[in-house]
Amino acid sequence: MMKHETVIQLLQSKHGEYISGETISQRLGVSRTAIWKQIRKLEEAGYVIEASRKLGYRLISVPDTYDLAALQDKLQTVSFGRGLQLLDTVESTQILAREAAESGAAEGALFLAEQQLGGRGRMGRGWISPRGKGIWMSMVLRPAVPIHFAPQLTLLTAVALCRSLKRTTSLAIGIKWPNDLLIEGKKISGILLESAAEDERLRYVIAGIGISVNLEEADYPSELLEKAVSLRMAGGKSWDRSELLADFLMEWEQLYRLYAKEGFGPIITLWEALAVSLGKPVRLTTPQGELSGVPIGLAESGAIRIKLEDGSVQSVFSAEMGEPL
Amino acid sequence: MMKHETVIQLLQSKHGEYISGETISQRLGVSRTAIWKQIRKLEEAGYVIEASRKLGYRLISVPDTYDLAALQDKLQTVSFGRGLQLLDTVESTQILAREAAESGAAEGALFLAEQQLGGRGRMGRGWISPRGKGIWMSMVLRPAVPIHFAPQLTLLTAVALCRSLKRTTSLAIGIKWPNDLLIEGKKISGILLESAAEDERLRYVIAGIGISVNLEEADYPSELLEKAVSLRMAGGKSWDRSELLADFLMEWEQLYRLYAKEGFGPIITLWEALAVSLGKPVRLTTPQGELSGVPIGLAESGAIRIKLEDGSVQSVFSAEMGEPL
Repeated sequence: MMKHETVIQLLQSKHGEYISGETISQRLGVSRTAIWKQIRKLEEAGYVIEASRKLGYRLISVPDTYDLAALQDKLQTVSFGRGLQLLDTVESTQILAREAAESGAAEGALFLAEQQLGGRGRMGRGWISPRGKGIWMSMVLRPAVPIHFAPQLTLLTAVALCRSLKRTTSLAIGIKWPNDLLIEGKKISGILLESAAEDERLRYVIAGIGISVNLEEADYPSELLEKAVSLRMAGGKSWDRSELLADFLMEWEQLYRLYAKEGFGPIITLWEALAVSLGKPVRLTTPQGELSGVPIGLAESGAIRIKLEDGSVQSVFSAEMGEPL
Repeated sequence: MMKHETVIQLLQSKHGEYISGETISQRLGVSRTAIWKQIRKLEEAGYVIEASRKLGYRLISVPDTYDLAALQDKLQTVSFGRGLQLLDTVESTQILAREAAESGAAEGALFLAEQQLGGRGRMGRGWISPRGKGIWMSMVLRPAVPIHFAPQLTLLTAVALCRSLKRTTSLAIGIKWPNDLLIEGKKISGILLESAAEDERLRYVIAGIGISVNLEEADYPSELLEKAVSLRMAGGKSWDRSELLADFLMEWEQLYRLYAKEGFGPIITLWEALAVSLGKPVRLTTPQGELSGVPIGLAESGAIRIKLEDGSVQSVFSAEMGEPL
């Protein structure tokens, strides 16, 4: 039996160019009629496909709803995303994941929404999450490390997301400390890790992630356009969220396992290679006041190491980092 | 105007011995009739007072309900315990404090219950909290330190409670790492700090504290009697919970302010002076396996420093510490 994921995979592999019905027929070993039926099904699912008697089929756009079957099919993880709940409209996936974690949800339990009405970013800021245009998700982690190491998980998650998005989109994406992903200085994703601990033991961590995939200019409040951008606006095309998500979950799980085995050392190396905030003087706003210096790398604790004017190096645990001076 | 706290203070200062009506009258500058009226009020509030025409009055026992007016009167803190809610029966004060913290309760908001039906200790263990016999409480903290420092607050809380209880009861109380208080090897209190963080920022910490004040043998399941004891069983008399609580809150707030100003250094010194777990070989059960060695002190991170057989020193963040070997 032919699965429609396979036709869509062939269409997607052509990146918007035509593929003939004959080629599809040969590659999948099915009749032209069977393909045509499958194309109809894809169209019903929201894919826009152009059909030409001469040239065959080409994919114009992907649906703005997730294709769960396709997602499950692509997902090669052991636990990340394995307990998946796709919801239409929620206040915030973070709240759902936290409730699930309190009720004992296993590591990897994932809450995915088509839209959030009250998405939140760092420091209680809002996060716009319009229907079908981004990946709005929260996942339960149960890391076997003491509370001291929670900030390392934030940095690990940024590394995984950055590596995965660079690979799937080929866009020039970098990390601003601690965990913002930027394209040409504009933010394309937000990561927020909420930790719950008893004494020194982490009970669970909820990783909330928002990725602005297919948003258009009109989706942003105008004051945000200076500092935010979507993959679509940056890359000039829309992306299949299921594919981005599956690839990210795999990368993330791999790094998480590497971290469990070898500690934070390898993650520091990967983070520093992707960081756009190193080597340029910046101003940092910390709870203890303002500070200027040159970020030179990560400390083992997850703090950023800042070289001050007098040549000394200070580790900063918590701060808002400004634009390069 | 005479306050009944003052009569009770005089009675308590005699530790169960008689004090004559004349002495009270002179010390407080009020008539014998006023004193007699006040004694009646105290009896109505649950104090048991023996009256003798010849000898005067002596305090037999304190009530098993809190005297909120007396507590507020004794409390000299700036914020700790200032927003106080006294409840009769609750599942767990921890749940109430957490909900309050999520709703924006200020630092120092305190939830106090006469009894808990589902009191909890470390590692999900139960905690017996019979009516009127102990201090069962949870307080909201909003420390301006990053998540790395949460374990320091656990140790600070143990130091404050130990110093205060030693002063008010004169019993030989010591700290077992990280935060159990012991009398002759038996546990008299439990401390559990629940932290909620966003990335590296602590949003709040709920300090849950249970102090076994006036429990009797019959209040404990028999298997607990080997490892648990109350202040009353250890000291041979019952104690006024309002007084213990007021003194503890003041000590705690003082150390908390010292910590905010001078960091963890002074707390390490105080903790080590009270610790009963230093210098004796022990076995530790960590998430990574078993470990034997001699605890020699605290690390800046709040970890315990263990001298291993080969002479090297290892910092252990999270473990169950066994009995001395």
